[in-house]
Amino acid sequence: MALIVQKFGGSSVANAERIEHVAEIITNTYKRGNDVVVVLSAQGDTTDDLLAKAFEINPYASPREMDMLLATGEQQSIALMAMAIGRMDVPVVSLTGWQVGLETTSTYGAARIKKVSGTRIREELDRRRIVLVAGFQGINKFGDQTTLGRGGSDTTAVALAVALKADLCQIFTDVDGVYTADPRKVPGARKMQEVSFDEMLELASLGAQVLHNRSVEMAKRYNMNLEVLSSFTAEPGTIVKEAVKQVEKTYISGVASDKNVARIALVGVEDTPGEAFKVFNLLAREKVNVDIILQSIGRSDSKDISFTVKKNDADRAYRVLMDHKDDLGYDHVDINQDVAKVSVVGGGMVDNPGVAATMFEALYEAHVNIKMISTSEIKISVLINKDDTDKAVAAIHDKFFS
Amino acid sequence: MALIVQKFGGSSVANAERIEHVAEIITNTYKRGNDVVVVLSAQGDTTDDLLAKAFEINPYASPREMDMLLATGEQQSIALMAMAIGRMDVPVVSLTGWQVGLETTSTYGAARIKKVSGTRIREELDRRRIVLVAGFQGINKFGDQTTLGRGGSDTTAVALAVALKADLCQIFTDVDGVYTADPRKVPGARKMQEVSFDEMLELASLGAQVLHNRSVEMAKRYNMNLEVLSSFTAEPGTIVKEAVKQVEKTYISGVASDKNVARIALVGVEDTPGEAFKVFNLLAREKVNVDIILQSIGRSDSKDISFTVKKNDADRAYRVLMDHKDDLGYDHVDINQDVAKVSVVGGGMVDNPGVAATMFEALYEAHVNIKMISTSEIKISVLINKDDTDKAVAAIHDKFFS
Repeated sequence: MALIVQKFGGSSVANAERIEHVAEIITNTYKRGNDVVVVLSAQGDTTDDLLAKAFEINPYASPREMDMLLATGEQQSIALMAMAIGRMDVPVVSLTGWQVGLETTSTYGAARIKKVSGTRIREELDRRRIVLVAGFQGINKFGDQTTLGRGGSDTTAVALAVALKADLCQIFTDVDGVYTADPRKVPGARKMQEVSFDEMLELASLGAQVLHNRSVEMAKRYNMNLEVLSSFTAEPGTIVKEAVKQVEKTYISGVASDKNVARIALVGVEDTPGEAFKVFNLLAREKVNVDIILQSIGRSDSKDISFTVKKNDADRAYRVLMDHKDDLGYDHVDINQDVAKVSVVGGGMVDNPGVAATMFEALYEAHVNIKMISTSEIKISVLINKDDTDKAVAAIHDKFFS
Repeated sequence: MALIVQKFGGSSVANAERIEHVAEIITNTYKRGNDVVVVLSAQGDTTDDLLAKAFEINPYASPREMDMLLATGEQQSIALMAMAIGRMDVPVVSLTGWQVGLETTSTYGAARIKKVSGTRIREELDRRRIVLVAGFQGINKFGDQTTLGRGGSDTTAVALAVALKADLCQIFTDVDGVYTADPRKVPGARKMQEVSFDEMLELASLGAQVLHNRSVEMAKRYNMNLEVLSSFTAEPGTIVKEAVKQVEKTYISGVASDKNVARIALVGVEDTPGEAFKVFNLLAREKVNVDIILQSIGRSDSKDISFTVKKNDADRAYRVLMDHKDDLGYDHVDINQDVAKVSVVGGGMVDNPGVAATMFEALYEAHVNIKMISTSEIKISVLINKDDTDKAVAAIHDKFFS
């Protein structure tokens, strides 16, 4: 007998039929003798509908009241799921974020989990009940409801699994695991049996929309094994864990692409010490996350500094750079939104110096031009023209996996 | 400066436009220097929509989970109203039932208020914020959410007014006060300036759908003045209070009718002591509320016992009577659903013995046949054919008020 935490997203509880299907998955896990804690998101479009209602009344609504409103979506999901499971005569109870003592910081709309008191959940598990918990929400020191922001329900699931010392945390999604590339675009993409936390983090940040980084980071910190699997199929998914046995020969675990990126170039920056510091300090204060950075080798008296940001940060970055033009002393700013980032990720890369060369060879053969390059111990990323993305991913994947 | 509790029903917050209108009423009260606490119901059809969702999944859903689901409706209302008031730059905060410490019994779906801790509300009022409270809901000793059942939001408002020692509790409804008869059916119906708690209780129980009895009973117990008024007009409403000055000459305050009634007759009951006890004890155990009771003067060896119940209790009453036919020893049961109850109510009645006679005269002149009669100190009710209801109310009203 094990303690298993399961998480189902909004599409898994979108309507009565889907709810009944998920109820089957949950009760089957329970009937095999396990203790089961389930985290649910709001139904399908509920959150969007609530946001639209709020926007009509006040486009600048207070984040506290927005959280008060949005928290109802998950509460409805757990109540409806409890009814579905109750109909199967399996003991069940639903609990909100505040009822399970999920304490968060006070930043409404983007609260972070501080502490989880598992008391109420343990009491209910001792009564042999399935426990359904509203994802995405908690309570702050003022006794007010907060929401966790993007990826919140995944994070709730991992936090509960850690607090309850669960044996496994299963994240049910639309896909049935983590693939070596996007299976909708790369026919040869293969599902991985296992992937390490670090590789998963790189893959997630590179646009493989399977797990939110926050939840993977938390799982890594507390060494909580995750399983990514589909609520639509009954197949085993991909296990995300600390150490991955190299059962397979490949030393890279996946190829990912990200089109939500823009390149900004500061052209003609004075070639004096401290220029880069000034630029990135300004951007940090504006909370603009900078990804790849490239500094050209200076001409006699000036140099170029290029970097990538998320697309929706590009305007903000541009504005702050323009506002400080005199101080920074550059010639002009250039923005390119028609770029994409393609990356290979793999823990085995560090021992295989030829990975970068193999990747560049694939791109060369596919006639894809590389604009920027960035490397880490387990990742190599290149910036290319957006239109080349699918071609580049397929070419790289073929090179490594076929 | 006063402390005023205001309550708005579901139609008052049905859409963005109505919410903005109500936000005006609330902020105007606040801007006159008052402390304002507002109780809101769920938006328009929200509760019905949630019930339909639940019914699709499980027609016999657990009442606990039903309360978990339904409580979200009021929570959405208070959040949206807070956004509307926030847009007017008036300080405001929304609070759920558990956040204001509204403790109830554990009967899900029909919980009764045990205690209200006003601490959080007082703190927020001290900060000069308008406080919006989710009606209809509370928390029980298990830390679970409960709902108060029918009339719950009115009751929440009165309970908060009592706990906070408010100066006035205003109940905003679709009508602009309490009338001497239904103004949609009796053209001469007049709005009363004041009406006593006892008269209001009789009027409410007789089908004048203005205030729910539970809220009036609570207001009477704690002597909390209520005002019934409309959120659509700016006119003063009707004050419901302990002692009403007899400024007006009429000694009856209103004429009410109720079609939600069925008459059940036990025909040919043995004329032995204890028969009536047996019948009504059985019904009480089945939680069937009996209203008017009439026992015919016995023939030599048998008698008839007739009584009225609410229409939706009629089948249950019939079944329990049939199940105990041998024990009760009657001849047969007769049910009539095509009846209505018409009543006159008035504190002045006790000093005016002619009221019953005047009422019966009016019915005689209107050719309305009386099936049963019931009287109390401040009320006379008659049971008539349902089709005669409007005619009877108009005739009685004319007799007393014109």
